[in-house]
Amino acid sequence: MSLKMIEKEGFEFVQGGICAAKGFRANGLNCGLNPDREKYDLALFASDEICDAAAVYTTNLVKGAPILVTQEHLKQTGHKLRAVIANSKNANTCNADGVEKAEKMCALAAAELGIVPQQVGVASTGVIGENLKMEPIESHIHELAGGLTSDGGGRAEYAIMTTDTVSKEVAVSFELGGKTCHIGGMAKGSGMIHPNMATTLNFITTDAAIGHEALQKALSELVQITYNCLSVDGDTSTNDMILVMANGLAGNREVTSEETGFDVTKAEPKSDYEKFYTALWLVLVNLTRMLAADGEGAGKFVSCRVEGAKAREDAITLAKSVISSSLVKCAMFGEDANCGRVICALGYAGVSIDISGVDIDLTSEAGVMPAYRGGYAVAFDEEFAKKVLEQDEIEIVVRLKEGKAQGCAWGCDLTYDYVRINGDYRS
Amino acid sequence: MSLKMIEKEGFEFVQGGICAAKGFRANGLNCGLNPDREKYDLALFASDEICDAAAVYTTNLVKGAPILVTQEHLKQTGHKLRAVIANSKNANTCNADGVEKAEKMCALAAAELGIVPQQVGVASTGVIGENLKMEPIESHIHELAGGLTSDGGGRAEYAIMTTDTVSKEVAVSFELGGKTCHIGGMAKGSGMIHPNMATTLNFITTDAAIGHEALQKALSELVQITYNCLSVDGDTSTNDMILVMANGLAGNREVTSEETGFDVTKAEPKSDYEKFYTALWLVLVNLTRMLAADGEGAGKFVSCRVEGAKAREDAITLAKSVISSSLVKCAMFGEDANCGRVICALGYAGVSIDISGVDIDLTSEAGVMPAYRGGYAVAFDEEFAKKVLEQDEIEIVVRLKEGKAQGCAWGCDLTYDYVRINGDYRS
Repeated sequence: MSLKMIEKEGFEFVQGGICAAKGFRANGLNCGLNPDREKYDLALFASDEICDAAAVYTTNLVKGAPILVTQEHLKQTGHKLRAVIANSKNANTCNADGVEKAEKMCALAAAELGIVPQQVGVASTGVIGENLKMEPIESHIHELAGGLTSDGGGRAEYAIMTTDTVSKEVAVSFELGGKTCHIGGMAKGSGMIHPNMATTLNFITTDAAIGHEALQKALSELVQITYNCLSVDGDTSTNDMILVMANGLAGNREVTSEETGFDVTKAEPKSDYEKFYTALWLVLVNLTRMLAADGEGAGKFVSCRVEGAKAREDAITLAKSVISSSLVKCAMFGEDANCGRVICALGYAGVSIDISGVDIDLTSEAGVMPAYRGGYAVAFDEEFAKKVLEQDEIEIVVRLKEGKAQGCAWGCDLTYDYVRINGDYRS
Repeated sequence: MSLKMIEKEGFEFVQGGICAAKGFRANGLNCGLNPDREKYDLALFASDEICDAAAVYTTNLVKGAPILVTQEHLKQTGHKLRAVIANSKNANTCNADGVEKAEKMCALAAAELGIVPQQVGVASTGVIGENLKMEPIESHIHELAGGLTSDGGGRAEYAIMTTDTVSKEVAVSFELGGKTCHIGGMAKGSGMIHPNMATTLNFITTDAAIGHEALQKALSELVQITYNCLSVDGDTSTNDMILVMANGLAGNREVTSEETGFDVTKAEPKSDYEKFYTALWLVLVNLTRMLAADGEGAGKFVSCRVEGAKAREDAITLAKSVISSSLVKCAMFGEDANCGRVICALGYAGVSIDISGVDIDLTSEAGVMPAYRGGYAVAFDEEFAKKVLEQDEIEIVVRLKEGKAQGCAWGCDLTYDYVRINGDYRS
């Protein structure tokens, strides 16, 4: 399925993923962790200059060893990073020697790059609780570092993918004080994905100059309306991480944080911070939607927009409840306009709303189908409903009579393939 | 799959379901709501004497019209009931004329039985938001009431089943002050089932004499460790109801409520209240396990027992998180010992625990397979793991080092059939 991009005037989508920003080079290869030698499993990317960094991690109490090591490194360097090494096929989580091996991965990369290990972040994704083999990484680190190029973003992305069926890269260019800046990112999905954390592995690079504090503020705020509005299967992973690195090579005056309070989905950005914030949002929100559309086994991209809520948080909670419902997901898979399941999911979301004020529409490129008005089902034409639901992208629109806030959440349908993929994930 | 029953000395399982208790008669038939004329869709049961009643309803803000009408009737009669009418195939929920039609169902039954409509409870299950046809009910109510017999529990049960593949009836006999008493119940599942409410439709009858207050107290407490420990798909239905009716025909001295504080799973009941409480628990817990084992599309019954928790509520929350995880459910379907998903689900359950104290075993009739010790994965024999997971009943045992409390939760695997059934539920 080809997903529509969320766009904004003054911000141009460009190629290159994490290498779109000046001074970033990347590589990926198969080192042998994955027995399928066609599939890459080890990624490295590095900046020519030291970067200010910001990160958001999983809220799961069980945290992968790479998360612990990256957190510690950022603390030791005062949030400065030069490079990231990442592998797929093995999460290096719940292993007694996990931290030691994650540190070793950083040390191997640092030795090749001639930097200190603390300036390297590390990430792993794959099976939890299996011993990570170090030999394949040790024997390929030289080749990996030697192949770093400014067009290698796609290779790094291919190396971090697990059950993802398509690569997920977004980059935008924009201007700050007459200087052209870039933000680019890559992400991997595609199961064990649920709101309330930084979902999955996501690496974002920028050549804009922006300090750690402003970067962290922008990231933490934007995660609430992007990654945390995503659910594939309700499982919060142990290894989720979003890491942003800014090397300043665009030459702009350093962006500092502001209390903007502006609505990134609607308002025009004015200050440098608002512009950077908007560009980062465009990368995050489009990566989030790509993750939803490529959720494990997904056949359809399903989003829910809730309007007329008391607060944005309420709207997002309600929208998440709808797109997380197994029954709504199955109905979307079956192209069945069973909106009783939508109003049911609104009812158990834990947000106090007046059900007698609920309107629901099913929408897609084929049109808008009114399903509920004032809390009651309305008669509809089954043939038209089928046409609306046959499309690859479905938006469920919910209107409340509580206030003026709105929010979106993104997910996918529940299919035979999700069950197949996850019935036998370790092999 | 044939499910093991949870038993207790001094309490004997008997046949008859809701008709095991003296003075209850039941019937079920196909009235035409379900086009498959072989499948019953309309149930009625009645007590020869007025009953004290207690009930627990869904916590969903969207409540089916039958819930609203039953609540109102119990309020008007001071919690006294004589009969219940119930239909499957249509939930009579989110329809503008829903309350009017639910009232009409009670009036039709009351006229046949020669009682006031307020002494009739009503329940509906099936598709939400579709108009309920009254003609089939009106034209069959006389036949339905005329066919009430003391061996008709099975017919009533067959009439309330939807996607259930097996009937769910449990009845026990026990003694109170030298008088033989009975509690019997029936339940229907099997999707839109999730903790935090009284799940599904469940009707319990008893010939023991027990007032509303004691009955409601016992029911409300026991629901916490039975129905609320159940999840099939994370969706909390709009029409869930557990209704208990006690007609006193056993002739025992009326049971009054007590602050027992006794552990129904372990302690021996002493007082009449403790005995009644234990008998009610046996009916509820076994119905709950039957609902889990026959969850939509289920191939396996999966339970999780958490020991060594600080409080029982913590243990239940953790156990529920494990059996609700789509990834754990898929791994059970695939007979894959992927216990990283179990510890992951413990980690995001929202309970503060020390992960480094977590032991996990996979157990079944084939044996006990240690999977995690002290928060770390342990090596295991894949062939033995396969043998353990090939069984129909799997118990995941989690031991913590937090305290002495324990709790159980019950669910099932996630299968192709769940997706198939729910992709096309309305037809």
